[in-house]
Amino acid sequence: MNSRWQPWSLRELVASRMGPAQALERSRARIAETDGELCAWVVQDPDPQPSSGPLGGVPIGVKDIIDLAGLPTKCGTPLRADAEPAEVDAAIVTAWRQAGAMPVGKTATTEFAYFSPGPTRNPAAPGHTPGGSSSGSAAAVAAGHVPLALGTQTAGSVTRPASFCGVASLVLTHSRFTMDGVSALSPSFDSHGVYAAGVSDLALAWSALVSEPDPALTAERPPRLLLWQGDAGPEMRAALAAARDRLVSAGAVVDDFLDEKVIAELTAAHPVVMAYEAARTRAAELAVASVLSEHLAQLLRTGASTPEHEHELARRTMTEAGKRVAEVMAPYDAVLAPAALGPAPAGLASTGDPVLSRPWQALGLPAVTVPGARSPAGLPLGLQLVGRAWSEANLLAVGCWVETVLRPTG
Amino acid sequence: MNSRWQPWSLRELVASRMGPAQALERSRARIAETDGELCAWVVQDPDPQPSSGPLGGVPIGVKDIIDLAGLPTKCGTPLRADAEPAEVDAAIVTAWRQAGAMPVGKTATTEFAYFSPGPTRNPAAPGHTPGGSSSGSAAAVAAGHVPLALGTQTAGSVTRPASFCGVASLVLTHSRFTMDGVSALSPSFDSHGVYAAGVSDLALAWSALVSEPDPALTAERPPRLLLWQGDAGPEMRAALAAARDRLVSAGAVVDDFLDEKVIAELTAAHPVVMAYEAARTRAAELAVASVLSEHLAQLLRTGASTPEHEHELARRTMTEAGKRVAEVMAPYDAVLAPAALGPAPAGLASTGDPVLSRPWQALGLPAVTVPGARSPAGLPLGLQLVGRAWSEANLLAVGCWVETVLRPTG
Repeated sequence: MNSRWQPWSLRELVASRMGPAQALERSRARIAETDGELCAWVVQDPDPQPSSGPLGGVPIGVKDIIDLAGLPTKCGTPLRADAEPAEVDAAIVTAWRQAGAMPVGKTATTEFAYFSPGPTRNPAAPGHTPGGSSSGSAAAVAAGHVPLALGTQTAGSVTRPASFCGVASLVLTHSRFTMDGVSALSPSFDSHGVYAAGVSDLALAWSALVSEPDPALTAERPPRLLLWQGDAGPEMRAALAAARDRLVSAGAVVDDFLDEKVIAELTAAHPVVMAYEAARTRAAELAVASVLSEHLAQLLRTGASTPEHEHELARRTMTEAGKRVAEVMAPYDAVLAPAALGPAPAGLASTGDPVLSRPWQALGLPAVTVPGARSPAGLPLGLQLVGRAWSEANLLAVGCWVETVLRPTG
Repeated sequence: MNSRWQPWSLRELVASRMGPAQALERSRARIAETDGELCAWVVQDPDPQPSSGPLGGVPIGVKDIIDLAGLPTKCGTPLRADAEPAEVDAAIVTAWRQAGAMPVGKTATTEFAYFSPGPTRNPAAPGHTPGGSSSGSAAAVAAGHVPLALGTQTAGSVTRPASFCGVASLVLTHSRFTMDGVSALSPSFDSHGVYAAGVSDLALAWSALVSEPDPALTAERPPRLLLWQGDAGPEMRAALAAARDRLVSAGAVVDDFLDEKVIAELTAAHPVVMAYEAARTRAAELAVASVLSEHLAQLLRTGASTPEHEHELARRTMTEAGKRVAEVMAPYDAVLAPAALGPAPAGLASTGDPVLSRPWQALGLPAVTVPGARSPAGLPLGLQLVGRAWSEANLLAVGCWVETVLRPTG
């Protein structure tokens, strides 16, 4: 990896005591240098306002389905090409501002955070997709434009780009923060996320966001993990097997997740509910589906024609499956799983497959992507840790431990 | 009850084949006749657009936290006094339009759907509160202004006004329809609701909304019910006891809900999460709390100072309690419970207490209010039926059966 694409560590920035003006200058310089090629940004704020707080004015990117006062929210769709500037910040932006973050602009998203790609390229894998839908945020962090960037996940929209771009991500427990001011796709699944250079940086960001102690400082005991590999491809399986060996050597317990049936049920139910809800959330867009991407139009049409009883059955399936997964996970700290099927697919036409995130997202569980692994060809591979609901701090502590153990040593 | 305040049956309207123009004329005449006194409406649409669909142009009211294209969404707060007209309908409005409903205006709400009352009076109990927060919608249906009106419920904002005003209501399973275009208070609990003259009318409306068979036609078998009376006052307890006798005589099984501990846990956890989320959803309003009602300002301040671990504990408590309640409810069709502590309190200063809805709303369960009972002084008393998640049709079928059995006979 070329130094042009070196991520920018939040922990180092905070430790350096660089002021907001200097941090902004550095962010703008990095963006100016490489975003012509990368296309991670839709628009930059000409006059970002720093705020006080533990993060002390750190520049952050905001996915362009999240309202940022003074800039339009274009949602990656021609339907919003002439959108007016948002009047107020989304609630999650307010929360990050209170933590001391300084939003510097909007990052590219797929159309309404579904599958139709934007222009963004993958700084860690030239010629390969950055993943989606939070494409611009993942790429901006991977390229060192900003130390933090906000995403959202409905299926695998935070975790998969993190894996493809080689950065860390946190998906928050569903409904942990309100989605007020965020364009909805499937409200039962739409969750907040954030990218950073490493899990340790995410831990610091989280502690600032919720005013709680830094989870990195509590990461001492080797965790108990449940390994699930799903249908991951050979490169990802190899990375997972190597990780297992190193984690066990370092003292972790790693058992196998054996109930494939419950995962299959969740994986099947998730897209049913997602389409059903998207057709209702995006009813206005469904009425003009011919101007949408075929990906999105197809989703909305599917959802609009889903019979009520099929939707209800999918909901009940998720409820029952959720109980079983909670029982299986209870003796463990987290599930260790692939963050994507493999490295980023070549080309920009597809953002890849979210299938390995669907079962966990169906349950609204928090997930951390740990970067660092590479395919034999040198492409990034992420591992995800899935935690119990409302346990972000514990999950980040586990993530810090795992990140440290797996860190390349030489 | 004076005929000025006679509700307008949806089933009768649909059977009458009255066209949209005539129905609109009748609605406007009823509003003109009594709304000067009642104050159920914030604004009427000067030019409502009928749409085709099974409901065939029935006039409906829309609570003024729900966007209706062309009219402002004022949320019952001075902060929104100069709000611009909404550009697009909320998703739930689109769904009702597709069912053939014709929105005719916005109904009064408490401030941001919390406790601070609007100007609305109770047509069924002069001098008493109509309840809140969906005050205007409940009153408009009770007064026969419209056969249907939309509400929302975060604690007891649909069920309690139905009980106080003597009308039927349905609270939908949480996240059954997206809240897109609805001002959020506590997204984990915010749910849609609808009022009608009777449960049978709600069944017809539901079948139109979801394009499924009319639940009233499936209401044949006597249901199995679990009775829970909470801390209801003596008038409500008497109504509940009388209902139990009649339902058992008609063939229903009515057992007692014995796990008061799980209810207490849910009742305690609900306001913790509600305040926590409201402080984040309404962060912009929290910043100008001095212009808000003291009720709302207090809620937001409480939520802003809730420690993260307290919020997490409340969430976990709800998850565990939800499993226990689901097990207890599994052999039954519904819980039969008071819809409010008693009749509408005198005066307009308070909208009453939502405490008897909190445990069910914490779990996101659907609830139907069955009107018809009266206190010794002649004030309305509602009974609520709480169903399993995603089972609105079954719940409405049970509600129709209960309504028929309890109907006054002479």
